[in-house]
Amino acid sequence: MELTILGCHSATPRIDTHPTAQVLNIKNHLFLIDCGEGTQVLLRKYKIKFSRIKHIFISHLHGDHFFGLVGLISTFRLLSREADLNIYGPKGIKEIITLQMKLADSWTNYGLYFHELSSKQSDLIYEDEKVEVHTIPLDHRIYTNGFLFKEKLSERKLDIIKAQKANIDKAYFPKLKQGFDVENESGEWIKNETVTLEGPPAKSYAFCSDTAYNQNIIPLIENVTALYHESTFLEKHHHLTQTTKHSTAKQAARIAKEAKVGKLILGHYSSRYKDLEDFKREAGAEFEHVELAKSGKTFSI
Amino acid sequence: MELTILGCHSATPRIDTHPTAQVLNIKNHLFLIDCGEGTQVLLRKYKIKFSRIKHIFISHLHGDHFFGLVGLISTFRLLSREADLNIYGPKGIKEIITLQMKLADSWTNYGLYFHELSSKQSDLIYEDEKVEVHTIPLDHRIYTNGFLFKEKLSERKLDIIKAQKANIDKAYFPKLKQGFDVENESGEWIKNETVTLEGPPAKSYAFCSDTAYNQNIIPLIENVTALYHESTFLEKHHHLTQTTKHSTAKQAARIAKEAKVGKLILGHYSSRYKDLEDFKREAGAEFEHVELAKSGKTFSI
Repeated sequence: MELTILGCHSATPRIDTHPTAQVLNIKNHLFLIDCGEGTQVLLRKYKIKFSRIKHIFISHLHGDHFFGLVGLISTFRLLSREADLNIYGPKGIKEIITLQMKLADSWTNYGLYFHELSSKQSDLIYEDEKVEVHTIPLDHRIYTNGFLFKEKLSERKLDIIKAQKANIDKAYFPKLKQGFDVENESGEWIKNETVTLEGPPAKSYAFCSDTAYNQNIIPLIENVTALYHESTFLEKHHHLTQTTKHSTAKQAARIAKEAKVGKLILGHYSSRYKDLEDFKREAGAEFEHVELAKSGKTFSI
Repeated sequence: MELTILGCHSATPRIDTHPTAQVLNIKNHLFLIDCGEGTQVLLRKYKIKFSRIKHIFISHLHGDHFFGLVGLISTFRLLSREADLNIYGPKGIKEIITLQMKLADSWTNYGLYFHELSSKQSDLIYEDEKVEVHTIPLDHRIYTNGFLFKEKLSERKLDIIKAQKANIDKAYFPKLKQGFDVENESGEWIKNETVTLEGPPAKSYAFCSDTAYNQNIIPLIENVTALYHESTFLEKHHHLTQTTKHSTAKQAARIAKEAKVGKLILGHYSSRYKDLEDFKREAGAEFEHVELAKSGKTFSI
């Protein structure tokens, strides 16, 4: 899993700060998470092969998280995309996009599918052979979801020499990797764990933006390999978190600590702050493994 | 009048090419014309005092001409704008913007007024003491207007010495500047032209994008000081003008020549062309006064 940050500031785009958008690469499948204005330019700037994006997840309908979506959809049309594109986002997103397509008389020449979300529970919203995506209900001013990307348990590692010694036909090797016991050529049952080893651990990534401090998410994100948690403010502006329903760096770190995550990535910084190291310092006092999101930075998860 | 080009390429934003947006400064009143994705960043980059924009004119509802509008409106809200903002654009534009505001639960704290256009005639759509704005119906794939900005005839220049010699009370000086004859202190009527001179000539600017070659616009733009006319293509791609309803540089120059404009500014270049000087050469063969639009360039009109 590799996470590339396109934009990680709150509010509106400026010359050097960009609103939320990030690309998660899971075994060469690209997932776009949020799509602020200008995302398509950043995809080009950071040389992401963006025609390979097949699924876009939108957390909520504040502009800094989706105003770039209609432009990206429209660019895909101009680039003669043929592959289906799936959009997961709050109810209403389909109307916003299709209204603009209707008025421009510009329908896509590829399949565009909307998966509108309105549940307040954590739901499985996407699944393929390698990954599951679940929503993480967040506490913001309007209906908002985070997203949890979980690799499925990877295959067991086959010890070929042991399997051959156990006289197992090659045709059963895929079954062994899937964890099943199999019959060998002499008709004996061979226990899976005698010829296989545990595969590499499954990785997971949780995206939580935008949200007030919300302990309800802890059971959902427990032990994730990496957590992106918004930190719009520093503690000195704690009083602003109530009305805006945002978090401080310290609050993000507390969530990370209580959920025992592997690594915390901070982002969604308010543009009032000049030195982002202050976010790292503040969170670092609560939780050891803190990193700062930055446009163009790629995190290996 | 001063025209600053923000973006002048067709289609979608890239790292170095931006979709249509320009700011017309008429005696320190700023008018924004079209608003492609990323316009708000370019307004900052070119240090335009964009809080002073009170009127935005949108030619048509293709994304490269208005996808930046909703973001700009939303940024004005975040910047606590108080002044009214007026949007002139095709029918449907109000629904697009207000739908997004409704779903974000983010209404503006300033007056936002939509003036939706659907007439196929040239209409006067805005007027103040200094300027008139008229639509220029264009021939494109969807309903599209260009815009003609005309300074009102400026005041006559008062020859104060002559006016004093003619024994005219100061209170009548504004009347004289407006072109009226007045009575002097002895009760004699003084002919206006004996104490005033003609003022500076009124300037005019016509914005024509996007459009196929369309001679119908000539009477509307005759003798304008400057004409921005799209030139998406060069003549070698003339065959593309029919289906796309765009123009070549040569066609733009023909319109400029027949309308006897002062200066032709080319723009809306297709991203297939590397050397924009080819546009200038092609148009220059037909019409002498040709300039190329370029992001960040300011034209004095």
